[in-house]
Amino acid sequence: MSKYKHIKEACYTANMQLPELGLVLFTFGNASAVDRDAGVFAIKPSGVPYHELHPDHMVIVDFENHIVEGAMRPSSDTKTHAVLYRSWEFVGGIVHTHSTYATAWAQTQQAIPILGTTHADHLTCDVPCAPPMSDKVIEGDYEHETGYQIINAFADQKLDPQEVEMILVANHAPFTWGKSVEKAVYNSAVLEEVAKMAYLSCTLKPDVARLKEALIKKHYERKHGHNAYYGQ
Amino acid sequence: MSKYKHIKEACYTANMQLPELGLVLFTFGNASAVDRDAGVFAIKPSGVPYHELHPDHMVIVDFENHIVEGAMRPSSDTKTHAVLYRSWEFVGGIVHTHSTYATAWAQTQQAIPILGTTHADHLTCDVPCAPPMSDKVIEGDYEHETGYQIINAFADQKLDPQEVEMILVANHAPFTWGKSVEKAVYNSAVLEEVAKMAYLSCTLKPDVARLKEALIKKHYERKHGHNAYYGQ
Amino acid sequence: MSKYKHIKEACYTANMQLPELGLVLFTFGNASAVDRDAGVFAIKPSGVPYHELHPDHMVIVDFENHIVEGAMRPSSDTKTHAVLYRSWEFVGGIVHTHSTYATAWAQTQQAIPILGTTHADHLTCDVPCAPPMSDKVIEGDYEHETGYQIINAFADQKLDPQEVEMILVANHAPFTWGKSVEKAVYNSAVLEEVAKMAYLSCTLKPDVARLKEALIKKHYERKHGHNAYYGQ
Amino acid sequence: MSKYKHIKEACYTANMQLPELGLVLFTFGNASAVDRDAGVFAIKPSGVPYHELHPDHMVIVDFENHIVEGAMRPSSDTKTHAVLYRSWEFVGGIVHTHSTYATAWAQTQQAIPILGTTHADHLTCDVPCAPPMSDKVIEGDYEHETGYQIINAFADQKLDPQEVEMILVANHAPFTWGKSVEKAVYNSAVLEEVAKMAYLSCTLKPDVARLKEALIKKHYERKHGHNAYYGQ
Repeated sequence: MSKYKHIKEACYTANMQLPELGLVLFTFGNASAVDRDAGVFAIKPSGVPYHELHPDHMVIVDFENHIVEGAMRPSSDTKTHAVLYRSWEFVGGIVHTHSTYATAWAQTQQAIPILGTTHADHLTCDVPCAPPMSDKVIEGDYEHETGYQIINAFADQKLDPQEVEMILVANHAPFTWGKSVEKAVYNSAVLEEVAKMAYLSCTLKPDVARLKEALIKKHYERKHGHNAYYGQ
Repeated sequence: MSKYKHIKEACYTANMQLPELGLVLFTFGNASAVDRDAGVFAIKPSGVPYHELHPDHMVIVDFENHIVEGAMRPSSDTKTHAVLYRSWEFVGGIVHTHSTYATAWAQTQQAIPILGTTHADHLTCDVPCAPPMSDKVIEGDYEHETGYQIINAFADQKLDPQEVEMILVANHAPFTWGKSVEKAVYNSAVLEEVAKMAYLSCTLKPDVARLKEALIKKHYERKHGHNAYYGQ
Repeated sequence: MSKYKHIKEACYTANMQLPELGLVLFTFGNASAVDRDAGVFAIKPSGVPYHELHPDHMVIVDFENHIVEGAMRPSSDTKTHAVLYRSWEFVGGIVHTHSTYATAWAQTQQAIPILGTTHADHLTCDVPCAPPMSDKVIEGDYEHETGYQIINAFADQKLDPQEVEMILVANHAPFTWGKSVEKAVYNSAVLEEVAKMAYLSCTLKPDVARLKEALIKKHYERKHGHNAYYGQ
Repeated sequence: MSKYKHIKEACYTANMQLPELGLVLFTFGNASAVDRDAGVFAIKPSGVPYHELHPDHMVIVDFENHIVEGAMRPSSDTKTHAVLYRSWEFVGGIVHTHSTYATAWAQTQQAIPILGTTHADHLTCDVPCAPPMSDKVIEGDYEHETGYQIINAFADQKLDPQEVEMILVANHAPFTWGKSVEKAVYNSAVLEEVAKMAYLSCTLKPDVARLKEALIKKHYERKHGHNAYYGQ
C-alpha cells in the first residue's frame, strides 16, 4: 500500500467535489494535497474525466516537479502548484478551476471589488487579479511562471496569502488554496459565488460603491479576529 | 424529551429547505422558529453544514440571547433574530440567507422596484433596503444593531411588517419573516425570484417603469383584501 | 367515476410538467384542458402545491365560470381561461406561468423581438405583449378582463391565435395555448427559452437587428407550410 | 442485424448526451456519426423526443441525402450534415444544437472573441460566425445551402476546419464537428461554456480586450503543438 494514501485520498475527494459544486466542466480543473513531512503532493492526472477517477490515479510529485509515484502524467498545471507549495509553507492544498463567473472576471483583467458581507466574511480586500505575463515570460516555462505570477502579485500588492486565499490570473482563471485541500475547495466555491454576486451588482449599477471599511473589518473579525464567534 | 421539540423540528425542517430551494451555499443562511408562550426560539447552530444537521442540534435561545437548551453555539446572527422577535410580536419565524440575486441588490444599496404582478401578489411596495449602519454603530454590538437597522427602516419608511415580510440590509443580504417559519422560507424564495426578475427587467430596460398603482392594489387584494379569492 | 376523467388527467399531467420544466415556483402557474363537446374545462385548484396535487383535485368549470364538478376552488385565473376558450374555438388547452425570462420581458411592456430561427421555428413575428389595462378596467372584473386584454391585443395587432400561440400580458406574465394542453405546455417552455435568448442578445448588443423576412418565412414553413418536412 | 450498428450506437449515445449536458430543449438539436468506408452516416430522426429514442431509430443516409436504412424521416438538418461530410473528409461526427449562449451570440451575428485560456485551449481565433445567407439562397435548398454557408465562411476567413471545429451560423445556432461524434459533442459543450464566459466578460466590460497573441499560442500548443503535454 502506498505510503501516500492519505494525500491521495484527500486529493481524490477534493477533485470529485469540483463537478458536484458546479465548478468544472469536463476536466477543466484540478486539486492537490500536500504532505509537508514527505515533501510531496498528490495531484490529479492530466485530462482524465472525473467519473473515471480513482484515488490510486493521483500522481505524487515533489516540489521540483519530479514524479515520485504514479503511472499517469500529472496535471498540466502541476508546476504552478509546485511553485506555490515551495513558496508558501503554510499551504496544505491548492485548487484550480475555470469556474464560469470567476473566469469571466479574469478575462476582463479586473479584481473583483468587495461589495458586501458575503465577500467580507472571507477576505478584507478585493479578490486580486494577477496581471498578464510579459510575452517573454509566456514563451518560457509557462506553468512554472504562472506560479511566480501569483507570488509576485501578492508581493506587489502587499497581500498576505494566509489572509487572502484566492486570486484570479488575468485572461486565465482562478487559483485558491488553504491549510487543507478541503478549505481550498471551499474557497473555490465561495469565490465563484462572490464573483457572480459582484457581476450582478456591477451590471445592475455600474458605479456601485465598494463596501465601507468599518463593515469590512467587522465581518472579517467575526470569523478571524481575536474574539471570533462564528462556527463551533 | 425536550419540551421544545416542536420548534426544533420546525426550525430544522425550515433550515433544510434552504439548500433545496437553492437559497444558500454551504452555511450562508439560518432559519429560526419561535414559541411565544415559552418566550424562546429555536435557531440553527453556527457554521454547521446542512447535511450534518439534526433536529436535536437546534439551539434554544430566549429573547435576551441566553441559551436555554442546546450543546452548540447558535448562529452568529442570533441577536438579529432576537431583536425582531422581541419587537414584532406577530412574527413566528425568521429566515436569513445570502441568496444570489437578492444579495446582489443589497450590494447596490437599492430597494427592489415593484415591476410586475409576481411582486404585487406578495407586497404592495418596493422591497425595502435598510441603509448602511453608521461606523459607530458597526463598531458596537453588530448583530444586535442589525436588528434595529431593520426595525428603524420600517419605522422611517412607514411600512407595516405584517404586510411587508422581507427586507434587504444594505451591503449585506435579505431577511424575511412570517407568521410561521414555513412562511418565512416561502418569502425568501419569493424574494429571490422577484429579485431575479427585477434584475433582468432593469438590465434589459434601464428606465423600466414601476407598476401602476391600480394594478398593485388589485393583485394584492386578490390575496389579502376583504374579498380575497386566492387559495383554498 | 367522473365523466371528465380524460381532461382531469390531461390537466393534471400538464400541471405537473410545469415545475419539471422549471417554469413555475411554488404555485405560480396553472394549466387547463377543455372538452368541447361537454362545454367544460379542467383546471388546477387555486394555491395547491404541485407535490400535493392529484388528478381528482382538478376542478371542472364551464365557459361561464360555473363549477360543474370538484371540491376545491379553481385557480384565481379561471376567468381568463374561460374567456379564451369561449372566444377561440380551436383552443384545446391553456397554460399560464410566471416563468422568469418571459415575465421579465412582460415587466418591461415590450414584445420579444424575433432574432433567430429558434423563435422563427415557432412563430413568424415578435411575441406580442398586450398593453396594460386602463385603471377603470382593472377595478372591474380583473381576470375576466385579462382574457379580453389578450383577445383585443390579437385583434389590434391583426394576429392569428392559431399561428401565434403565446402572448405576454404587460406587467404580468405569459399565457400560451394550443390544440392540446400538451402543446400549450410545450409553447410555455419554448417561450421561456426564446425569452432568455433574446434577453442575452439584447443585453450583448442593444441595437441587435430583427431576423430578416426571408429567413423568418423559410423556418416557419419548415414546420407549418404546405411542404412541411419537420417531424415524423 | 444492421451492418451500421456501430454508427447507430455512436450516434444514439451522442444524441442522448445533448440533454444531459444541458445543450438542448425538447428536440432542438441533432448529432450524426459517419462510416467513411460505407459512405453513409447515422443521424437522429426528426422531431423525436430524446427520452423516446432508441439506437434502432437512427437513420442511415448517404452523402447525397438518400435514406439507406431506417423507418423514420431523418433530421430536417440532414442536408447540412451531408454537405459537411462530403466537403471535409476528416470529419467523423457532427453536432447541431440551439444551446442558449452560443445561439444568443449567433443572433447578434457576431463572432465570439477569444478572451481567455479556456477558449485558447481549444482554438486560436474567435469562434467564427457565418454571415446571413442572401434572400435568394434562403429561398432555394435551405439546409443544403446552410452547409455551404459554413464551408464558404471557412474559405473566406482562411480558417482550417481541423483546427477550428465549431462555427455559429448567423441568426441560427452553432454547429460543431470532430474526428468522432464524441469529440463533436465535447466541442458543443465547450462552445456553450466559452460563449457564456464571453457574454459575461463583454457585458461586464464592453471594451474588453482580446487575448494577446503570445498567450493564445502558448495555450493552444499545450494541447496541439509538437510538444503537447496535456492529457495522457
